[in-house]
Amino acid sequence: MTRMKAPPTAKPANGHGAELCCPPLSERPLNSEEADVAAQLFKALGDPIRLRLLSAVASHREGEACVCDISDVGVSQPTVSHHLRKLREAGLLISERRGTWIYYRVDPVTLAAMERMLSVASGRA
Amino acid sequence: MTRMKAPPTAKPANGHGAELCCPPLSERPLNSEEADVAAQLFKALGDPIRLRLLSAVASHREGEACVCDISDVGVSQPTVSHHLRKLREAGLLISERRGTWIYYRVDPVTLAAMERMLSVASGRA
Repeated sequence: MTRMKAPPTAKPANGHGAELCCPPLSERPLNSEEADVAAQLFKALGDPIRLRLLSAVASHREGEACVCDISDVGVSQPTVSHHLRKLREAGLLISERRGTWIYYRVDPVTLAAMERMLSVASGRA
Repeated sequence: MTRMKAPPTAKPANGHGAELCCPPLSERPLNSEEADVAAQLFKALGDPIRLRLLSAVASHREGEACVCDISDVGVSQPTVSHHLRKLREAGLLISERRGTWIYYRVDPVTLAAMERMLSVASGRA
């Protein structure tokens, strides 16, 4: 089963590369464009601070958090903001400004696409 | 739900860091050691060539392949061998020498652990 509707020739402006990408790894070999899109997503998670931030946001009350809610990952607030922005640019977080703060939540579309890629057992034809 | 039995203080020699790591990202904030282990796994997938190789192996006949089966990712055979070795060291591939060739297959334990981490919807308490 593939949910890819068209070859991903470029990452969409909204950061939702995952929407165009990709089948389960066990379904068929990825082509170059698909691999480029997917590698950007996994690369964004290949950093311990970004993983801790993503889990801090995802597990926070109501599944959302702002910089003001995150204080225990051992880096400064500007560094936290920097990595949250990187995660948003990669399409892993969605952000919304409310008053003074920007609130972040996980983008479930992107996470589900990555999860599907790794579903080796269920993905075999 | 967490399947972590003990804090991962070091990556096991067999490359199965995933066995000790990690809960779904939406379950609770990862600690520093968990994030280190998981980041190494995701970092290994943060490269287009490695993703193409992993999908080539996973989707090949019987779910296994040797360098001799992989010819269409646009890099030399030594480079293919290098990246396959990196994927094995990261715990994503298992290898077995048979005659002249080393055969690779996906390590389902590692892939399942990574898939579980990304299961945001099902992982919420």
